[in-house]
Amino acid sequence: MEIKLPKKALVTGAAGFLGSHLCRQLLSEGYEVTAIDNLFTGNKSNIYDLMDDRRFSFVLHDVTQPFWGQFDEIYNLACPASPVHYQHNPVETIKTSVIGMMNILDLALKTKAKVLHTSTSEVYGDPLVHPQVESYWGNVNTIGIRSCYDEGKRCAETLAADYRREYGVDVRMVRIFNTYGPNMHPKDGRVISNFIMQALCDEDLTLFGDGLQTRSFQYCSDLIDAMRRFMRLSRVDVDAFCVKHSLGSPVINVGNPGEYTIKELAQETLKLLPDSKSKLVYKPLPADDPKRRRPDIILAKELLGWQPKVPLCEGLKKTIAYFREMV
Amino acid sequence: MEIKLPKKALVTGAAGFLGSHLCRQLLSEGYEVTAIDNLFTGNKSNIYDLMDDRRFSFVLHDVTQPFWGQFDEIYNLACPASPVHYQHNPVETIKTSVIGMMNILDLALKTKAKVLHTSTSEVYGDPLVHPQVESYWGNVNTIGIRSCYDEGKRCAETLAADYRREYGVDVRMVRIFNTYGPNMHPKDGRVISNFIMQALCDEDLTLFGDGLQTRSFQYCSDLIDAMRRFMRLSRVDVDAFCVKHSLGSPVINVGNPGEYTIKELAQETLKLLPDSKSKLVYKPLPADDPKRRRPDIILAKELLGWQPKVPLCEGLKKTIAYFREMV
Repeated sequence: MEIKLPKKALVTGAAGFLGSHLCRQLLSEGYEVTAIDNLFTGNKSNIYDLMDDRRFSFVLHDVTQPFWGQFDEIYNLACPASPVHYQHNPVETIKTSVIGMMNILDLALKTKAKVLHTSTSEVYGDPLVHPQVESYWGNVNTIGIRSCYDEGKRCAETLAADYRREYGVDVRMVRIFNTYGPNMHPKDGRVISNFIMQALCDEDLTLFGDGLQTRSFQYCSDLIDAMRRFMRLSRVDVDAFCVKHSLGSPVINVGNPGEYTIKELAQETLKLLPDSKSKLVYKPLPADDPKRRRPDIILAKELLGWQPKVPLCEGLKKTIAYFREMV
Repeated sequence: MEIKLPKKALVTGAAGFLGSHLCRQLLSEGYEVTAIDNLFTGNKSNIYDLMDDRRFSFVLHDVTQPFWGQFDEIYNLACPASPVHYQHNPVETIKTSVIGMMNILDLALKTKAKVLHTSTSEVYGDPLVHPQVESYWGNVNTIGIRSCYDEGKRCAETLAADYRREYGVDVRMVRIFNTYGPNMHPKDGRVISNFIMQALCDEDLTLFGDGLQTRSFQYCSDLIDAMRRFMRLSRVDVDAFCVKHSLGSPVINVGNPGEYTIKELAQETLKLLPDSKSKLVYKPLPADDPKRRRPDIILAKELLGWQPKVPLCEGLKKTIAYFREMV
């Protein structure tokens, strides 16, 4: 008789927006989950409902310090991801991305764990190629106020690629494009949480620049689905895919290619909150703010048999319901 | 009466090609010099002649480990810089650039030392703008075989910019373009040392691709001159220069804008070694090899009152004389 023990997963940044959803998904699939977070931008309230599950353990820990444990799978989500947070202490942001990645990769090397690293569309910077394909090398300032995040994340990709190439660590990477949904930090300063919070509080919705810069918005459940599909693949299949597409390392875009201007998003938000007294106001564009960003997801479609399912208005409704509880 | 004690300088990578020349220059200006090197690519023979100077101390140390000491000036040159060396252990290369930079900046923060960090033209990657100006953000692959160096160096720039902006560390950066001269590692695999060693040994000179990719070649004394000029400037003047030129951080190109094809360099080398039996042979271009690279040095000219003085044929002669002693 085959004894089937639950698989063990480590999730870093587990009390954050995406980490909390991922933990919930892994538990629903029968995993034992060890959740670490330094609670800088994460909130335990995002995982209160998981605390009574005996397969779930929360450990207060900062990924810039080494961590030990035997896991089948490691999901590295730890890093403040919104400018207001990652610019709070830029040096710590770099350390979280770079030293955090080293610690995770060292752990994976010692324990033969499979790793999913969450990279970001910010590695493309202010892209000169549109939509962004994985083979595009990006347009990133090394010395600007966004660089701590962008270059930290780029360097983390390099580390992952080199640990894979040199030491054989089975690491896969997703470049996550704008994602939203319940459990977002209400003050993370990103456009969807800003607009919803402003509309709920009858404050004017703040647009930067002319509001015609575009973004793509992915609902969180679509991303979690892609991440899990990626980790279910065998190493052999992932390697074969890299060879087929001349990918130096398994890194794929995950996002929703639907493109909206920031102004359209503001209008859509107000349409879903018809009682709001908010109007649109315009402010100057901050430094190095990308003008357009949209994922090419051909590789994700082929590799994962995946595409985003949740339309913006449906995702916005769920997110509004979440934030409404807060105000 | 004013007592004048010598200024104290720390040089990392001091036994390397450029580090050794810098130590010699600093000693000639009356400095006390502490020289650290892990001797991975550095060679003590480069600094044998300095060992008897009581103002000179050599410490075997790796910059990825913290270092302590009180210095007026720190020159951070530690990092293998040629592909054959930095690809030997890519993860260590990233650690040298990134953790090494953190250690240096932490030391500077604690001791109020002034820092000169040596960045590289590799932060521009395979540039789409020609010649490269400091405001160009570069075109760099995050997951290729050169990325450990390119992204490590980019991330080090980001750290320097953030320590300066957040903590007030007085750090200045030079982006060094191809530099050559005596004390180069004979097997560093870079084009000038390759060609001279091949010509001296009557082996054929290896050109990659069609040999029409261009490079600029700076003689080492010109670079050391620029570095010293940069460090002699007051912080106020450097800050004012940054404001005037909208530079997010004081980073300037230092190189020789004279542009030569690799083929021209090979021919020039053979002209200076008329007894060599070597011919030119062509091999395929390695991955991500930049096709053109030439510095725009307008900022260095204005800030430092500097420009390169040593013409290629003169520098080559001195370098050939150095390598001739070796074979």
